[in-house]
Parts: sequence; structure tokens; C-alpha cells
Amino acid sequence: MSDLARCEIAAQLRRVRERAPLVHVICGTASQPLVADGLLAAGARPMMTSTRAEAPTLVTTADALLVNLGMLTAEAAAALPPTVAAARGAPLPWVLDPAAVGVAPVRTPLARTLLGAGPAVVRGNASEIHTLAGEGEGGRGPDATTSVGSSRSAAHEIARTGTVVAVSGPADLVTDGVRDLRLLGGTPLLTRVSGTGCLLGGLVAAGVAVGEPLVAAVAATALLVRAGERAAEVTDRPGSFRAALLDALDELLPEEVAEDVRLR
Amino acid sequence: MSDLARCEIAAQLRRVRERAPLVHVICGTASQPLVADGLLAAGARPMMTSTRAEAPTLVTTADALLVNLGMLTAEAAAALPPTVAAARGAPLPWVLDPAAVGVAPVRTPLARTLLGAGPAVVRGNASEIHTLAGEGEGGRGPDATTSVGSSRSAAHEIARTGTVVAVSGPADLVTDGVRDLRLLGGTPLLTRVSGTGCLLGGLVAAGVAVGEPLVAAVAATALLVRAGERAAEVTDRPGSFRAALLDALDELLPEEVAEDVRLR
Amino acid sequence: MSDLARCEIAAQLRRVRERAPLVHVICGTASQPLVADGLLAAGARPMMTSTRAEAPTLVTTADALLVNLGMLTAEAAAALPPTVAAARGAPLPWVLDPAAVGVAPVRTPLARTLLGAGPAVVRGNASEIHTLAGEGEGGRGPDATTSVGSSRSAAHEIARTGTVVAVSGPADLVTDGVRDLRLLGGTPLLTRVSGTGCLLGGLVAAGVAVGEPLVAAVAATALLVRAGERAAEVTDRPGSFRAALLDALDELLPEEVAEDVRLR
Repeated sequence: MSDLARCEIAAQLRRVRERAPLVHVICGTASQPLVADGLLAAGARPMMTSTRAEAPTLVTTADALLVNLGMLTAEAAAALPPTVAAARGAPLPWVLDPAAVGVAPVRTPLARTLLGAGPAVVRGNASEIHTLAGEGEGGRGPDATTSVGSSRSAAHEIARTGTVVAVSGPADLVTDGVRDLRLLGGTPLLTRVSGTGCLLGGLVAAGVAVGEPLVAAVAATALLVRAGERAAEVTDRPGSFRAALLDALDELLPEEVAEDVRLR
Repeated sequence: MSDLARCEIAAQLRRVRERAPLVHVICGTASQPLVADGLLAAGARPMMTSTRAEAPTLVTTADALLVNLGMLTAEAAAALPPTVAAARGAPLPWVLDPAAVGVAPVRTPLARTLLGAGPAVVRGNASEIHTLAGEGEGGRGPDATTSVGSSRSAAHEIARTGTVVAVSGPADLVTDGVRDLRLLGGTPLLTRVSGTGCLLGGLVAAGVAVGEPLVAAVAATALLVRAGERAAEVTDRPGSFRAALLDALDELLPEEVAEDVRLR
Repeated sequence: MSDLARCEIAAQLRRVRERAPLVHVICGTASQPLVADGLLAAGARPMMTSTRAEAPTLVTTADALLVNLGMLTAEAAAALPPTVAAARGAPLPWVLDPAAVGVAPVRTPLARTLLGAGPAVVRGNASEIHTLAGEGEGGRGPDATTSVGSSRSAAHEIARTGTVVAVSGPADLVTDGVRDLRLLGGTPLLTRVSGTGCLLGGLVAAGVAVGEPLVAAVAATALLVRAGERAAEVTDRPGSFRAALLDALDELLPEEVAEDVRLR
């Protein structure tokens, strides 16, 4: 067992349900329904305004912010810097998901600029973390993967800026640069439903609203991993898996998640 | 039993299915899939263009319009005034859902301006209705609620402008300023799925295309309440509830809804 | 049996699963979740960026492009010409879905301009194909239908430009102007879920990435028809049908689809 006790994970997930944090989510339109429903299922509350006129004002009413760079409209992209600035001024914690960074030329400088604005957690897949750390030019398509194992040094590089880094993959890695936590398990079905990566970013954002970034990232990852496993017991097909995943996010008790998570 | 006979509710729901009204919906992107599928399940047909170039022209081919202010893009917000003007000129009835009014500074004046443009029905939760009536500054997050009971005077205030007002909450209130109809029942699961409020606005819009505003608002509310109850008999988890809700919207007979609705 | 052998259909569907083509999809926001999940279920990979800044660059990393004109934002509409030009330059095949053409004045000239840019396949319903061919002014609402039978000459007219044409309806027609293939079967439930037409366009685009346009259009249509029939065996209600349809897209074997499709 790692130095992050299971009781911390359980306590963190309980806090999300008890406090129902309001999470301001800026992400691509294709993922919005899953992220909104997933946050509601996990006990949080989503808010998704992303205009230049409204987002910087509304974010100050939220408990945390998720900034996901995937498939943003130009309007949403333009709203990001002032919205992040408003979140920092509030202050409230925010999570950066550098989705598809490296694939699109305009996203990489934006992601690096945002990294300088102090996110509590950076969440991405291995190729995105590599690119953000300046170690590669990313993959092809939103789910391109480099192995999580090889991304440890990239994650540590990013963590030096003072942020927790969560790397998604067959085994997930969460690190603050000092402690490395690996979460085993999950199911390939999580990659057969569009938007589950964005949803993980949302769950992490709900978590940083009520807990420490490292604990929040581990607990949110453990929740999604376990919910995926639970849903995969119900069905092995992607259409019904999506509903079963949301059901499991609602059904799983914090204690169950904490007990069942395979950490090392 | 209220002065609105159950047979009027059944007849109204039958008209929607028989005439399959084309409903032009302008709402936030996160809610669009649920609203589109919900309208189809209830027998109506959705159309969702929201650009300045197309919406004012296309709306004139529709049978009714829903304007939902939640999470609109700047482009959709700019398209609203000419689209509403085109709807009035057609003329065709329209429904205003002042979603999240009071939370965002720019939405409150827009909502009040639109109220002056003569919607057939205004639908919102209690805090939104309070804000629109000038009695409060709204809540925090899209689902913030003030009790429906206390919103009766606010609803009456708005109804003076000649519109029917539908207030969503644990008990729903529909009023034209003279007659107050309360609908009991429903299920908390309706608040665990993102976009059900927008969907209710869509169902009301489908209704005003083929019936009187008061009857349309009551019948649409009764349909969603009963569909929620029916779905809650199938599942108590939000992921499968979403599918069960759409199934119930399709399955419920107008007579069943009218017979089972608890009005007072 | 037609001159397009069933083994070609099976081989085509196998290629999609083996090569997992990356499909760049530009379509309306309401349909994005279904198209993304449907492509994943069928073994392809979706990418949905539609900004002027990113789409023309990102499209060159894809294996095929779908351009669906339904409900586009002004930003996405502006990104179309350079994105199509970039796709042609790559070169990679692309599919045009002239959704709701004829209904919206601005879409018809745009659709005709795009037709001149050499799509591998044009997919639409009968009224859209009629309008694109200059034979009518389209229907009312996105699902307005003229009979597929009467659209044969319109489809042939369009096919003269060198594109394959797929006309959706109670019976589907696929033609290259020389060979006409009709696919029987399917289920009316496919019209009770929003976005299934867009999804078909996406499946055709995945197909043209790995096969000849005529075979790709027939195989994709056969897959959706059979998946709809399979899902309709599971449920006769639209909410659960959506999940069952995605499950069937994942579950159906290429050989099953090829064997069961009713071609003439």
C-alpha cells in the first residue's frame, strides 16, 4: 500500500458528495453531455458557460474550474485566459486538460502559457503529457497514446512547476513530483466511449474544490477506474456501457472505491 | 380537480403526436442531444440552428420556438433578437426559458427585453422566476432553487405581461395570473440528468404550437413529471434513467398522463 | 443479388475495424456525441475540431473527412472551404452531407460549391438530394422526405460530377450513376433518435478512408440498417434504442452484416 492511505480517498469522495461543488467546465461540445451527467452522477454540479462575456464572471461563482483544450471553439479559446485569471483571482483551484496538445499547432503554446498560470492538477494522456513537457510532438488523434510508464519523467518535469500531474493510460499515474502513485485496473471500454478523458478532468476539478490536489487526482481516478470496472461487469458493449458507467458513478460508495482501488 | 379538465390535457398531448410540430430550439450545446431526443420521443420534431445568418430565416418554417438562455454562445445570443422578431412576424408562438438568469450579469437585461417581446410561456425554476420578476438576484449554478411556493407572487408579476408562467420545482406551478395550477409528483432523478429543464421548455414549445399556452404548459409539465415517475420505476440510477425517461416519453399514452397527473 | 458481392461488403467492414481510420467530423453540436460514439463503436476514431484556426491543419492528420452542413456555427461554416481544400491537398477522401439544404437559403449555394470540390460520396435524404440536384427546394425540417424512389434521377444527376450518391429513406439507394444498389430493411426507430443521419455520414467517411466509395457507402449503410434492426429486436423505445444501436454497431460481425443485408 502506498503512503496515501485508503481512508484519505474515501474521505475525499465523501466530501464531494456532501459539498456538491459547482464545477465550471470549459470543454469541447461533443463531450459536454457526458461530463455534465458524470459530474451530476458523482455528486457535483456542472456549469458550462464558455463565452468571453460570461465565463470570466461566472467562474467566480464556482468552486473549481476545468479547462479542457480539446475541440474548443474560437470563442471558448478566447475566453480561457480571462477565465483562468478570474479563477486565480477568486481564488479557486483549476485543472488543466491539455487535450490533443501537440496535434494542433495553436494548442501547444496555449497549453504552456496556461501551465504557467498555476493549475492545481494537469490531467492528460501520455502523449499529451510528453508534448506539454517538451519531450515530443504528441500523437495522432485525441486518444493517441505513449505508454504511461515512459511518461514518468515528463510528468515529473511538469510537476516541478508546482502542479500535480495525472497521466491516463492502461495504468494511471498520479504524481506531485515526489510521490508517484499508480492505479491499476479499469477497462478498455472507457476508451470506447467519447469524452471519458474529459469526464476524468471534471471529476478531478470537483475534487480540488474540496481537497488537496494529489488526493483529489487519485480519488477521482480511482472512482472512474472502479466505475468502469463495475460497468464492465454489467455489459461489454459501448452503448449500454455509457449508461452503466454513469450508474456506477452514482452507486459506488466512497468506501468501496477506496477499498477496491489497486494502488502501488 | 382543478378547472382545467383532464380531458384537455389528454387532447393537448394527442395533438402534439398527431401534428408532430416542428420546434426551433435555441439552447446550450450540452443540452441539445437530450432536448432533440426528448422532442422526438414525445412526437415533435426538433430543429436547432442558432446562427445569425440562418436562425431568423429558418424559424419561419417552424411551428414554435424555444429560446433558452442557458450557456449560449455569443453567436446564438446575437441571433436571438432577430429570431424572436421573425417568430413574432410569422407569427408563431414562442417560449422563453431564462436559464441561469441572475447568475450572469448579461443575461438579466436580455431576459427582460425578451419578456417584452411577448412569449406565450415563460418557464424557469423558482430563482430564475424571482430574478426575472425583479425580486431577487437568483441563485448559484443552473439548478439553484428557491421554493416554488414562494415564487407564486413573482410568477403572477410576470404573468401580468400577458404570458403564462411555469415554475419548476419539487411541485410545479403553472399560472396565467388568474388560475394557479400545481402539479405534484415527479422524481429527484430529473435533477440528476443534465438538461431536463431545457427539455421541459422544448415540450412546452411543442405544446404551444398546437394548443393554448396554459393547457400546453400544464400538459407538457404533466408529461415530463409522469415520464420521470415511470422511469424511476425502471431504475434508480441516473445513467439508465436518462434512457428510461426518453422511453417513457414515447410510451405514455395521453390518457394515462391526464389520468395520473396530480393537480391541485 | 447485385453485382456488388457480399464478400466485398464484409471485407470493407473488416478493413474499418482493422485500420481504425481517424475521421475528422464537422457537424452540428447536437449530433456530435452520437457520431463520436457511433464511430468508436464501429471501430473508427473521431476527431471533431471545426475552427478556422485548427480544422484546416488537423484534417491533414486524418484518414477521411465528413462535412455535414446541418446546424453549423458560423465559425464551422467559415472553416469548411479551407478544410475541404486541405483535405483535397493531402489528399484524403471526404464525404458531403448536405443536411437541411434547401431549407436554409445560405446552405444551398454552399452545398453546390462544395459539390464542385469533389466529395467521394454525397449522403442525404431524398429532399436534400433533390435540392442539391436543382430539382426542388427541399422540405421542412431536417427529416423532410421525398420518396427515395423518385430521387433516383436526382441522384444520377449528382453522380455525373463523379461522386457516389447515397440517398437515405425507407429503402436506401446508393449509386455511382451506373450501378444502382437498393438496401431494404432498417427500422423507423432510426428516425426517432436525433443524429442517425449524421452518423451514417460518419460511417461512410470511415469507409472511404479504407475502400472504394461505392463499396464504402453500401457497406456503411448496410451496417447501420442491420444495427438498427438488431437494436429494434432489443427494444421498441427510442431512449434504450440509442444505446442498443451503439451496442449493435460494436457487436455485429462484418460477415453477419454482409449475409443479412437485403440488396437489390
